[in-house]
Amino acid sequence: MQFATRLDNVETSAIRELFKLLGKPGIISFAGGFPDSAMFDVEGLREASSKALAEEPGGALQYGATEGYDPLRAQLSAFMKGKGVEVDPAGLIVTTGSQQALDLLGKTLVSRGDKVIVEGPTFLATIQCFRLYGAHLISAPVDAEGVQVDRLEALIAEHQPKFVYLIPTFGNPSGATLSLERRRKVLELAVKHGTVIVEDDPYGDLYFGKAPPPSLMALTPEVPGSRELVVHCGSLSKVLSPGLRIGWMIAPAELLAKATMCKQFSDAHTSTFAQATAAQYLKSGRMPDTLAHVRKVYAERAAAMGAALKRELGDAIAFTQPGGGLFFWARLTGAGGKLADANVFAQRAIEKGVAFVPGAPFYAEKPDLATLRLSFATANIEKIEEGIQRLGAAL
Amino acid sequence: MQFATRLDNVETSAIRELFKLLGKPGIISFAGGFPDSAMFDVEGLREASSKALAEEPGGALQYGATEGYDPLRAQLSAFMKGKGVEVDPAGLIVTTGSQQALDLLGKTLVSRGDKVIVEGPTFLATIQCFRLYGAHLISAPVDAEGVQVDRLEALIAEHQPKFVYLIPTFGNPSGATLSLERRRKVLELAVKHGTVIVEDDPYGDLYFGKAPPPSLMALTPEVPGSRELVVHCGSLSKVLSPGLRIGWMIAPAELLAKATMCKQFSDAHTSTFAQATAAQYLKSGRMPDTLAHVRKVYAERAAAMGAALKRELGDAIAFTQPGGGLFFWARLTGAGGKLADANVFAQRAIEKGVAFVPGAPFYAEKPDLATLRLSFATANIEKIEEGIQRLGAAL
Repeated sequence: MQFATRLDNVETSAIRELFKLLGKPGIISFAGGFPDSAMFDVEGLREASSKALAEEPGGALQYGATEGYDPLRAQLSAFMKGKGVEVDPAGLIVTTGSQQALDLLGKTLVSRGDKVIVEGPTFLATIQCFRLYGAHLISAPVDAEGVQVDRLEALIAEHQPKFVYLIPTFGNPSGATLSLERRRKVLELAVKHGTVIVEDDPYGDLYFGKAPPPSLMALTPEVPGSRELVVHCGSLSKVLSPGLRIGWMIAPAELLAKATMCKQFSDAHTSTFAQATAAQYLKSGRMPDTLAHVRKVYAERAAAMGAALKRELGDAIAFTQPGGGLFFWARLTGAGGKLADANVFAQRAIEKGVAFVPGAPFYAEKPDLATLRLSFATANIEKIEEGIQRLGAAL
Repeated sequence: MQFATRLDNVETSAIRELFKLLGKPGIISFAGGFPDSAMFDVEGLREASSKALAEEPGGALQYGATEGYDPLRAQLSAFMKGKGVEVDPAGLIVTTGSQQALDLLGKTLVSRGDKVIVEGPTFLATIQCFRLYGAHLISAPVDAEGVQVDRLEALIAEHQPKFVYLIPTFGNPSGATLSLERRRKVLELAVKHGTVIVEDDPYGDLYFGKAPPPSLMALTPEVPGSRELVVHCGSLSKVLSPGLRIGWMIAPAELLAKATMCKQFSDAHTSTFAQATAAQYLKSGRMPDTLAHVRKVYAERAAAMGAALKRELGDAIAFTQPGGGLFFWARLTGAGGKLADANVFAQRAIEKGVAFVPGAPFYAEKPDLATLRLSFATANIEKIEEGIQRLGAAL
């Protein structure tokens, strides 16, 4: 069978092979990118779903508008308002997880050979998703304060990208958060160069202690002309439930209309059953408690992992303690003649009964082979300490 | 903003504009393509969803495999076995409605300029979906027994298409059902020319009285070599609930693997919440009664519409009484100097308080302007008779 040429440059996620090893008994896994199932508000979702079926069975079970189920769009508009973003319900569309928002951006904007700037490192599925539409990806370097804006500007000027894709808050995998000053600068760059900025924000609500700076979208009123250049992708996956597959996209009207047309032919609409359930859940008022709970638990786990890494791996590993999200991004320093190749380290770690993801696949170009990603989301503190001990032994 | 070149040849569904008129008070609509909300088994779905959350909260709310939720794949395998198709759970993937199966086929198989043969007329969203991937669509003519296989063979030989897309059973919009003899012939053509055949089958279970011939997929054991060339797309949308967005695709292993990779970057996976609910519903054993009920109600409505059309429009309209599905496909004959342009007729009908869809947009090429589609699914018998009377008055 002859497949489409767009498949030539893409392969199934490189970390899928690794995930097959995770079935090994007794493995402690820091490899996942998902939230802890134990924190799902099952009772709240059961009530929301029953209520949706009782009060609006037609809406919850029938075909719906491609743009999204209106009661959910209204709830998401209010949810965003609580995060400092003014957006009408009609100014956002519901997507089948924020992964679909990325897919629709690729479909709507990227012609073969178009350049797209992403962070180096960035979300793995973003790389593959945009490449499927023929994008040529350029990597902008990231440090502890997020993307380096001077380098970003030089790359924008050189490559005239179709858009820039950023995860400014608790990035995956970098864990980094773009500083307020850099956020303003990114918006200024957008206006100066007429460049579309895509802000993917699935982790912004998962902060430990201090809230992160406002989202790029929330800051657009401060930078005239920037609102028409910013796309914001949100998701309930990390804070409520990935299984609902509820994401949303806020974008300039013309782009939103084209993305809606593309979505019509992608999946007609996102499950109205899931949308009506999510709308009832947001309406129920349980979300603030749910957020407080997940923030508290993840904060404890992140603190435990940071302390254990310092204790067990010492100066053989360098990292910035994340202020939110699900991930540590670390770098093997090679200090004391220790291992500095994360792929070799990952193999040895599996042998010792602990798993993480080597960092190389997260780079669209020029991978840093010493990097690795550790998720603290799904193991309790005891497992985290045990797992990091095993890591120390493997190194 | 500059959009991707793939959007150049596609526009939002031509019938979306028409649908905006349907809000007019008192309109009787035969324009929709959806099932009747009143027939949804709300109680059964509520129980299924509660059970899914109670018994498998992690599975129902967490990220899941791109291929689909295993308990649902097992249920769908059993469901297909009941329809004469032997397929392992691993031989199918779950899709976000069967619309996504079409999208994945386009993404996986179609390079810009590739030819794809569809029926003339065919499902509107198929035309746009494949064109977004750059397909050049060729129309194969349809009569009351489905696609004309001699013409199909000539077109295959001439165009060497990437694949042939058919809705062999109660087609949308044609209402036609491919005869058993022609089904065998289509499979023989597939083998002879090495051509992939995509069988879209959302309506096969909605038969009135006699069951239709077995699906192409069910017939593959009779034609050696054909199984490796047939893709079968199924859906719960027309028989249970479109809002769940549960479809599935059975395909040769290599194609299924590529489609799964593409799905990974399209929406990661279909809502596990909806999948677990659908799995529990199928397991509950309520499906046979649900099917019996919808068949009975739609059969009565189809009978009423056929009789009313004959009574009110006489020889000014020609149609074949459908044996299942949701649609009448009709042609204005112009007899007695009456209207023969369905677009003009549609405008006049709206003025008289009744709506249907003109047939032209359903053709990928060479539209027949005298054709139109009427759905009998969502109006009760009284409304059907009143609506067809209005149609008669409009003509």
